[in-house]
Amino acid sequence: MDISKYMNRAELDTLDKQPLYLQIALLIADKIQKQILPSGTKLPPERELANLFAVSRTTAINAYRKLEQQGLVWTKVGSGTYVAQAHDVESLSEVPWPQLFTAYPQNPLASILRDIVSTPARGTISLAAGMPDPALYPLETFTELFNHNIGRVAPADFGHIPVEGYNPLRRAIATMLSEKGIPALTENILTLSGSQQGLYLLSKVLLEPGDYVVMEAPTFIGAIQVFQAAGARVLSLPCSEKLSLELLEDFLIRYRPKLLYIIPTYQNPTGRVMSAQERQDLIKLAKRHRLVIVEDDPYSDLCYGEQPPQALKALDSYGGVVYLGTFSKILFPGLRTGYLAGPPILINRLALEKQFIDLHTNNIAQWLVTMFLNEGKLAEHLTAVRREYKKRRDTMAKALQRSCANDLEFTVPEGGFYFWCKLKHAGTSQRVLQEAAKNRISFVPGAAFHTAPTLDKEFRLCFTTHNEAVLLESVQRLAKTLTQITKKNKDNEAMPCSVWPII
Amino acid sequence: MDISKYMNRAELDTLDKQPLYLQIALLIADKIQKQILPSGTKLPPERELANLFAVSRTTAINAYRKLEQQGLVWTKVGSGTYVAQAHDVESLSEVPWPQLFTAYPQNPLASILRDIVSTPARGTISLAAGMPDPALYPLETFTELFNHNIGRVAPADFGHIPVEGYNPLRRAIATMLSEKGIPALTENILTLSGSQQGLYLLSKVLLEPGDYVVMEAPTFIGAIQVFQAAGARVLSLPCSEKLSLELLEDFLIRYRPKLLYIIPTYQNPTGRVMSAQERQDLIKLAKRHRLVIVEDDPYSDLCYGEQPPQALKALDSYGGVVYLGTFSKILFPGLRTGYLAGPPILINRLALEKQFIDLHTNNIAQWLVTMFLNEGKLAEHLTAVRREYKKRRDTMAKALQRSCANDLEFTVPEGGFYFWCKLKHAGTSQRVLQEAAKNRISFVPGAAFHTAPTLDKEFRLCFTTHNEAVLLESVQRLAKTLTQITKKNKDNEAMPCSVWPII
Repeated sequence: MDISKYMNRAELDTLDKQPLYLQIALLIADKIQKQILPSGTKLPPERELANLFAVSRTTAINAYRKLEQQGLVWTKVGSGTYVAQAHDVESLSEVPWPQLFTAYPQNPLASILRDIVSTPARGTISLAAGMPDPALYPLETFTELFNHNIGRVAPADFGHIPVEGYNPLRRAIATMLSEKGIPALTENILTLSGSQQGLYLLSKVLLEPGDYVVMEAPTFIGAIQVFQAAGARVLSLPCSEKLSLELLEDFLIRYRPKLLYIIPTYQNPTGRVMSAQERQDLIKLAKRHRLVIVEDDPYSDLCYGEQPPQALKALDSYGGVVYLGTFSKILFPGLRTGYLAGPPILINRLALEKQFIDLHTNNIAQWLVTMFLNEGKLAEHLTAVRREYKKRRDTMAKALQRSCANDLEFTVPEGGFYFWCKLKHAGTSQRVLQEAAKNRISFVPGAAFHTAPTLDKEFRLCFTTHNEAVLLESVQRLAKTLTQITKKNKDNEAMPCSVWPII
Repeated sequence: MDISKYMNRAELDTLDKQPLYLQIALLIADKIQKQILPSGTKLPPERELANLFAVSRTTAINAYRKLEQQGLVWTKVGSGTYVAQAHDVESLSEVPWPQLFTAYPQNPLASILRDIVSTPARGTISLAAGMPDPALYPLETFTELFNHNIGRVAPADFGHIPVEGYNPLRRAIATMLSEKGIPALTENILTLSGSQQGLYLLSKVLLEPGDYVVMEAPTFIGAIQVFQAAGARVLSLPCSEKLSLELLEDFLIRYRPKLLYIIPTYQNPTGRVMSAQERQDLIKLAKRHRLVIVEDDPYSDLCYGEQPPQALKALDSYGGVVYLGTFSKILFPGLRTGYLAGPPILINRLALEKQFIDLHTNNIAQWLVTMFLNEGKLAEHLTAVRREYKKRRDTMAKALQRSCANDLEFTVPEGGFYFWCKLKHAGTSQRVLQEAAKNRISFVPGAAFHTAPTLDKEFRLCFTTHNEAVLLESVQRLAKTLTQITKKNKDNEAMPCSVWPII
């Protein structure tokens, strides 16, 4: 429609403070409201509108955009701009959230960790989450410590504190590490809201999209997720047997990875322990390549036989090992208190990042853990939980041997939380998990611990969360599941696993 | 040097599992160690090496890189590869951390928040940090609640809980908000490790580098930092007077910003309160443009006169207002417990992000806050702190009026934590801060609350952290500082502020 008879450039005031596009929009809006331009009217193309008012095309576009956002006109792509029906107004009023979200950096596996942490269905025994037994949480000790000390603490200790952490806790952790052969001063310690946060901060500070990281395969799901979310490409180092330093060196030369993430003691999920010799060889190689090693060590205090070898960090002669510890596995997860040990320059850079995330870790938890360490409560607690978890491990091992040995291989872990099992016969661990759900038992299938597709013959059972009676029941349910699957396999003569195209 | 007499392609084993570059490197290393190739020998260029062994150039490069990492050769750029001196080995053994770090996303202002939170020099009165008075922390109530309830709580409540938060706390917060006219169910609430974390999560979920956000100017430093770290470009909406909705609409049309960040009640730092009419008009405009509003509301419970108007979230008719609350300002910062209210689809997406950062917020703090809310302790605590902070505000206002009125303009805030002051005469607030340090008093200069350079005439004083005696002393020190500066200005006949090139 030719609108030049209703309005023209003379009506614009170039001296007015109001932008020209707004003035044009107002002129048109006025004609629409007066129904001089009735609904359905096709308005001139943007170029014509620009000519009519002697303005730039951008100004014309902005005028239409403004009218569109007011619901007065609508644009049909490829056709033109039309005066809207009265009821078109308001129809688009809800915020379209999903369109606003940034791309989610993860594949659907991302929710595995969440699902594991979430509560399983009623009546199901979950051996999935890697959690200590709530019945063993030292809540009484914490209550005593709270009451003994709340009167003496400076209230300012519950105000803002440095990002790096509550200093008495940093000191206590440094002392604890030094006693384990890891030389550390207060300045080497960053307290974390759980060691997961350490992985997150390291990914922010060290990784750009496209960078390589080396990880054991299988390994901790949370670490895989954080590194992948940072856009890193994962190089997998098989770790069921001895680590291949040759393969690692090959990675170092070909890809120059930013870091190696490793759990040397009671590995999650395999339970494996690196020997002292392996550790020395790894450090020698890492030193030569100045490779950053992120050593995650949540389990080494939970040994049920002989003491494991010293941490990699204790052997660190080149300043390249970053050590992550946590109180979640030995005390309780709700403390959300972990720590990182490294050179001060790294601690400082990580703290700059952490301030954006939570300013600093929770003071109450940090204060409680400080007293727990300083009043020597950790040693006696560890003695108690080690004794109990060792009994559970032995009970579970015997039961698995008795009821599942035909279908499963497993090694008895020397410490930590997990049995790592391998199916001997046909079927995948995901299939077993589906059947197991019907028998009200759950665990984590092996594929979750890998970044690449696997044969999926393996799965992880956590033996620390439940008492012996429940563990025995869980093994019975697992055995029943495995028997059912073996029977079905015989009946169906299942095809060997194939890759089917997704169409 | 021609090395073909010492080695040749016949020595490679293409059937060997060892990569060819490694085999080549080993051959050369052998000749170096036997000093057949003495130190200082120039090795053939990579192309020649590749021809010699009939391998690709990449293989040749990798062979040299491997030798270099072993310290056996070194490369002089533009010249060639040479056999190293024995002492060259090991010289590069320390990890070069700063070279490994990702680019820090912030300008040096980034550390302002940190510095404010950190402890000031001995004997200095700091009115910088926005903190409640530690003497008013309800630690006794918390101790009672702890002891009353620790025997009844299920230990599993101290294990892992959903990322979204401790459900009883989410429910209690939803109830609290509903009583304030903000309709909310449990599913609308995400508990946070401080409301700072809400800003961080929103930036991760909504902002890509280059996106626009609209912020008041001046505004909360922590929000500026988080949005800038996400790569967002900030559009500033002056807020000393009434907000200009015309300017905001202009921004919306020109730049299509991802969100508006706003503190409608007792704004930080200006203390300003948006009127009920302004709020309605803003919501009307936001609805038309389907603009996401992030409403930060840490202070509205701290009113010292009449009740402020209802939150923007209470007026939200289009599902676009995200509400942030915290217990840091009304209880104590060390709780590190805040919350976000929004549509479930947003809560879910934020929780997916939060799991990487800390799995979930601290259980002990969440459990304590739940009891505090459910046992009705908040109302009585708020009555007590409001009474005390009102007295402090009045004392401070009178003292400022009495001692600083010649040099300063300020408005008496109706709530919150801050006096926002403006210098009447020559000098900048940063200059005043420098002089003030000598008189052992500190505060935050106005420039810190802006994203663009300002005239820097303003600064913020927090009146809640210290008792009335200390506040009076602080005003005396400030008055002394201002007098000294006025005198110096007269002596020096200071030039008006100019922009000097940095050379």
